[in-house]
Amino acid sequence: MGGKTMITFNVEQKSGFSVVSFEIEGGVMTPSELASIQPPTIPGNQGVILSGRGPVYLFAFLTHFYHPTQWVACFAPAEGGGVVVESHYKGVAVGEIVPLE
Amino acid sequence: MGGKTMITFNVEQKSGFSVVSFEIEGGVMTPSELASIQPPTIPGNQGVILSGRGPVYLFAFLTHFYHPTQWVACFAPAEGGGVVVESHYKGVAVGEIVPLE
Repeated sequence: MGGKTMITFNVEQKSGFSVVSFEIEGGVMTPSELASIQPPTIPGNQGVILSGRGPVYLFAFLTHFYHPTQWVACFAPAEGGGVVVESHYKGVAVGEIVPLE
Repeated sequence: MGGKTMITFNVEQKSGFSVVSFEIEGGVMTPSELASIQPPTIPGNQGVILSGRGPVYLFAFLTHFYHPTQWVACFAPAEGGGVVVESHYKGVAVGEIVPLE
């Protein structure tokens, strides 16, 4: 496991959703590491905002990983919150911004 | 429809997968436009590589959109191909790179 990048996750519980943020040690990861990532489990009856500095493919991987939740959003600093990219919950629509301070 | 950004898609058929590339007119889109995007239909019995310059949330949206296909990859120029982020096909694994010239 020598050259393995450390990717750490943090979960913050908000009202109605979790914020899952990640940090890539040294800022660089390799695609093959996707196979062994273990993102945190979060309640399925709420949404999730993904946040962190990382490659597009990591966000895409996590979007799929959290597919079973109510909705998935990607944090966009310029938008001031998470942009909803998929939703199975009628209270939250795709394209909506869930504010995050 | 006045201020609407034009997002154009192009599909290139490869052996066993499609390459769906997008172009955002002017390079900038807004989250609310996700709600009206109509990505191209591709064969469900193969994979897809997503490619283009755009926000993370667009890639995440498209990853979910193409969920019914065999596998979904995000093109990563530095890797020389598409990084597989989800797969429902045993011949292609998550974290694998599908070469694209």
